[in-house]
Amino acid sequence: MWKPDRLSDQPLYQQIADDIERRISYGEFPPGSLLPSERKLAEQLEVNRSTIILAFGELRALGIIESRSGSGTRVSKFKWGATPKHTPNWHRYAEGGSFLPNLPFLRRIREALQQDKTLIDFASGELAPDLAPIEEINILMSENNYTSYLGYDNPQGYLMLRQQLVSYLSQYRDIQTTESSILITSGSQQSLYLITQCLLSPGDAVAIEDPSYCYSLPMFQSAGLRLFRLPVDHKGVRPEEIRSLYKKHRIKMVFLNPNFQNPTGALLDAKRRIELLDVASELGLPIVEDDPFSLSAYDGSAPQPLKAIDPIGSVLYIGSFSKIAASGLRVGWMVAPHSVVDRLADARQQMDFGLSVVPQKVAAQFLSSPYFQPHLDRLRMHLLYKRDLLIEALQSELPELVRFTVPQGGLHLWCKIIPDVNDNKLLEEAIRRGVIFVPGSVYGSDSGYVRFTFARARADEIGPGIAKFAAALKAILS
Amino acid sequence: MWKPDRLSDQPLYQQIADDIERRISYGEFPPGSLLPSERKLAEQLEVNRSTIILAFGELRALGIIESRSGSGTRVSKFKWGATPKHTPNWHRYAEGGSFLPNLPFLRRIREALQQDKTLIDFASGELAPDLAPIEEINILMSENNYTSYLGYDNPQGYLMLRQQLVSYLSQYRDIQTTESSILITSGSQQSLYLITQCLLSPGDAVAIEDPSYCYSLPMFQSAGLRLFRLPVDHKGVRPEEIRSLYKKHRIKMVFLNPNFQNPTGALLDAKRRIELLDVASELGLPIVEDDPFSLSAYDGSAPQPLKAIDPIGSVLYIGSFSKIAASGLRVGWMVAPHSVVDRLADARQQMDFGLSVVPQKVAAQFLSSPYFQPHLDRLRMHLLYKRDLLIEALQSELPELVRFTVPQGGLHLWCKIIPDVNDNKLLEEAIRRGVIFVPGSVYGSDSGYVRFTFARARADEIGPGIAKFAAALKAILS
Ligand SMILES: Cc1ncc(COP(=O)(O)O)c(C=O)c1O
Ligand SMILES: Cc1ncc(COP(=O)(O)O)c(C=O)c1O
Repeated sequence: MWKPDRLSDQPLYQQIADDIERRISYGEFPPGSLLPSERKLAEQLEVNRSTIILAFGELRALGIIESRSGSGTRVSKFKWGATPKHTPNWHRYAEGGSFLPNLPFLRRIREALQQDKTLIDFASGELAPDLAPIEEINILMSENNYTSYLGYDNPQGYLMLRQQLVSYLSQYRDIQTTESSILITSGSQQSLYLITQCLLSPGDAVAIEDPSYCYSLPMFQSAGLRLFRLPVDHKGVRPEEIRSLYKKHRIKMVFLNPNFQNPTGALLDAKRRIELLDVASELGLPIVEDDPFSLSAYDGSAPQPLKAIDPIGSVLYIGSFSKIAASGLRVGWMVAPHSVVDRLADARQQMDFGLSVVPQKVAAQFLSSPYFQPHLDRLRMHLLYKRDLLIEALQSELPELVRFTVPQGGLHLWCKIIPDVNDNKLLEEAIRRGVIFVPGSVYGSDSGYVRFTFARARADEIGPGIAKFAAALKAILS
Repeated sequence: MWKPDRLSDQPLYQQIADDIERRISYGEFPPGSLLPSERKLAEQLEVNRSTIILAFGELRALGIIESRSGSGTRVSKFKWGATPKHTPNWHRYAEGGSFLPNLPFLRRIREALQQDKTLIDFASGELAPDLAPIEEINILMSENNYTSYLGYDNPQGYLMLRQQLVSYLSQYRDIQTTESSILITSGSQQSLYLITQCLLSPGDAVAIEDPSYCYSLPMFQSAGLRLFRLPVDHKGVRPEEIRSLYKKHRIKMVFLNPNFQNPTGALLDAKRRIELLDVASELGLPIVEDDPFSLSAYDGSAPQPLKAIDPIGSVLYIGSFSKIAASGLRVGWMVAPHSVVDRLADARQQMDFGLSVVPQKVAAQFLSSPYFQPHLDRLRMHLLYKRDLLIEALQSELPELVRFTVPQGGLHLWCKIIPDVNDNKLLEEAIRRGVIFVPGSVYGSDSGYVRFTFARARADEIGPGIAKFAAALKAILS
């Protein structure tokens, strides 16, 4: 992002006016389009708002932009779109399409994190940079020849990685499979996208956990699915509820995140697992098991997935490197019957022609390297440490105001705020005070919950972050 | 892929029966599902069909599979799906969804190429491995530290790559833009997918060239778009036709591949470019300019894109590394107004959470390296050489039977077969004789055309490949 040069002879406002004019003439802001607000530009360019006001004044004087009170500042049509020429109404195109935008809370969080790099981040559901195996991957990349073939690859994914995953799944997840049953994806996110787009039709009913990550994804609504809720308690979902949803709504598929669920941290009870698979096989109902967190079990005993005890093949299993290695690699996988893998591989070929071979090679090398197991051990130790820092901080800062169950794996702590609070006010106040989290309502639940991710922040930020959060909470309660 | 061990004491058929049983028990082939045909399995496992017949016999005797004449061989339900348990009807799920499968010809070509590695490949629209900058990328990867950050990245794409593209676009494509106007995608394919899914709604009318790459993509139909044809002659499309399509059908967008068009190789005439932009600005109509081939211009003078002379911002510009460097990198880009970039970045976040950082770093390094320009020079020289080998071979093998215009850039030659032929018969006969191409009808045109890609095959394969093709053509004509 361009920033004005504070050492230049040219005044800041003039540099900014020139930059905006350049961006307009390059088409970034077409005639008639809305410019970012003064406040937003001031934040982006790290200047006072008064500087932006001067710059806008300059551009207005030149006829380049127009402001009308209440409707913001727009690029002048007269100057730039000399009639009778018409720039396409890009704004209307951008509002079209059947694909729903991300939830406002998530857009707000993304924006805030982009604007203020000093925010203490309890919002991003990922590992801190120092928990990712960056050194290890660097060594592997410099030692190996990664690009012996760089053409369009098999849309099912790079064979060497699928082979490595066969052993990985057998050794770490107790799942026996073959490389033809594996589809490599750009993370669990793409697995879910492919399933909702290609195996289900608009109008189909599906069951998802409440609260759950799925609610944070307008993807389910974009696909035209009717969503029915399976309440999650500390033992996960109750199998009987699946049967009753099936009777009432003929649900076509069940989406579960049974191991250290996002956001609650719940671990599906062993007895319920067996009952659940019984119900599924009685009804011929497919279960999608989204399993990104198991290997983070702090005591080292990763829970067995449903897929490992699935007697007749009711389960589509989804895995990912995002939560146990690096989310920026964008490597995930799905284990599914042949017909499903075939169909999804065909569809994804039309969407993006398959995944880049480069990160797939990195992932395959890392899995088969001697670094993988020590990395996991270290990861678990650090996550446990950070979880405890978070719990300590919450207990000392907000002993009467919050309630939570202690998670045994995963990256998140799901926290009930006991007094009544307005999600939006709390989030804005927290951002103002330098800390950010995800409001629980994003996950479909009642308001009054907060998801704290403790994996992303540095250890030394956790205490101060919760202190800021406590101050924000107390401020809006008073 | 598992292959039977010819040195083992166990007979081949027994090894194969064991492997199929294992694959069934792992869920690759659920109860009731169809197994691959005997012919297909024999090809995959590189054994005689009689060996497969023996293996199937063994499994049938054990009650593991059932064959009914005419409907193939299925996994037994009785044995594997002990009633009253039901495996989900995966096959029906795989047939659901609103996303259309790839065209049968393209599936057939993919399958044939996977099964027979010795086929001379005039079908895959990509560079031969020795034309990709593999050595250069290897050096860059081993010299550089690629993973300093491996978290979820900005959904608009890796900043350093967007910055590099700003200079690249200015220097090589005469396009002035800013990094905020660039969206990084997983190749042009994903750019087209995002545009059709997120900027257009089902029922919208759009114009596409005929013939064109777009016709090979059921993606357009999956998005529910109504397609109208713009005939392509040797000077590209005629701007007047756009006006008349607009009047008749209120088309919402025009998709063009103006530089060395796939499949025809046509270069849009300079006068038509100006007229076309006039029509677009008169109607306020957006043009999508898909521009993967320009830099391959054999004489080194890449044609100026529409975007470079687009006075008021009617053009969405799409670029890619696939045809000038390596398709397996999966890195492409789009230049668009702010509102469009924002919307598409938001949507793609839901689809796959953005592109892996790793190939984006590789691409950024390669663009800014001293290797880039020499690579392009070498690429152009080799493409020209291969084009000439193809033309020579066609002229000497089939002087009376084919007609074509000589392309001045790109990877393909579009060839009219003068006598009447059946596309399907010609393709199958060619495959049988060891050569493969794409039938012209895939691109929406009349049958009787063939697209020969000369970039993918080795230089020494081109002559023999055309000899095989000529033999196939003569065989089905006689
Ligand atoms: C339960 C769950 N599933 C899927 C995802 C998507 O992860 P990725 O696409 O990075 O694998 C997440 C990320 O937050 C998650 O929490
Ligand atoms: C005209 C055209 N556009 C787009 C593509 C897709 O290319 P990629 O997604 O690899 O950039 C192709 C590939 O054949 C093409 O020919």
